[in-house]
Amino acid sequence: MGQISTNSMDKKSFQEYYATGFSHCYGCGTSNEHGLHVKSYWAEEHPDETVAYFRPDSHHTGGFPGFVYGGLIAAILDCHGNGTAAAAGYRFQSRPMDSEPNLRYVTANLNLNYRRPTPMGVDLELRAHIKEVTDRKVLMELSLIAEGQVTVEGSMLSVLLPEKK
Amino acid sequence: MGQISTNSMDKKSFQEYYATGFSHCYGCGTSNEHGLHVKSYWAEEHPDETVAYFRPDSHHTGGFPGFVYGGLIAAILDCHGNGTAAAAGYRFQSRPMDSEPNLRYVTANLNLNYRRPTPMGVDLELRAHIKEVTDRKVLMELSLIAEGQVTVEGSMLSVLLPEKK
Repeated sequence: MGQISTNSMDKKSFQEYYATGFSHCYGCGTSNEHGLHVKSYWAEEHPDETVAYFRPDSHHTGGFPGFVYGGLIAAILDCHGNGTAAAAGYRFQSRPMDSEPNLRYVTANLNLNYRRPTPMGVDLELRAHIKEVTDRKVLMELSLIAEGQVTVEGSMLSVLLPEKK
Repeated sequence: MGQISTNSMDKKSFQEYYATGFSHCYGCGTSNEHGLHVKSYWAEEHPDETVAYFRPDSHHTGGFPGFVYGGLIAAILDCHGNGTAAAAGYRFQSRPMDSEPNLRYVTANLNLNYRRPTPMGVDLELRAHIKEVTDRKVLMELSLIAEGQVTVEGSMLSVLLPEKK
């Protein structure tokens, strides 16, 4: 499905580090065979940025022919944001992503401004810029880029899920 | 797929009034055979409220077993909001929804607060409360209710798409 090759493909994505019990997400879980499989990586040039690439399927159209469904955009940005939050959380704790305990984040707020239509049939670039990290939350700015133009931008607050007892 | 029966099922949903050229939306288009088919109606007791019911499929899980994927929630609320905007727009113009010219709205801002996990396996109730209507935009408050509890709430601004020339 959607995820396309990048020069980061030789590295594991954030989502591939999720523990088996937390890898069912429709948007990015490696265990969800019907899912979208969003895969997020650190951006190479920006220490506080992450990136994912995604090519929507032909049925992911919005109401207007030729443009991507806004709900799908919200979905893939949400997964990229929570993946980014996990990566930022491990970095905050100075731990590798495959170390215990597992850190998983959930969305507390997602606020998106749709600036212009997002075209179908091109690779979409998803960016998260980390603005603030504490021991319990990660605040990010999000953007979606298509053909060099930002089509959607916004912010997201992810909060750390308490560890399962 | 997801949409379930309600006591409004004998009436046409807002989305069933969309013109053929605008009915491809993955979230709510009647012409998208792979879509979610969200269907929205005026709420019976509240003149400024609309309602839709949706049952996620089993693969629409979030990263945590037993809970609905947050991205899907954003998607179905987005479709319910834009459907509501269309209905509000026709009402603002004192026209029936099957009259010309067609009014279609797109998302300008979607701002969601995830208050608690949304359980899988139950019918979800989507509500939009119309706060402001002008000739170009509709502002709404959104909420998602599962088992009597609001799990997600927020706001949405939809803007009228200029008519195709």
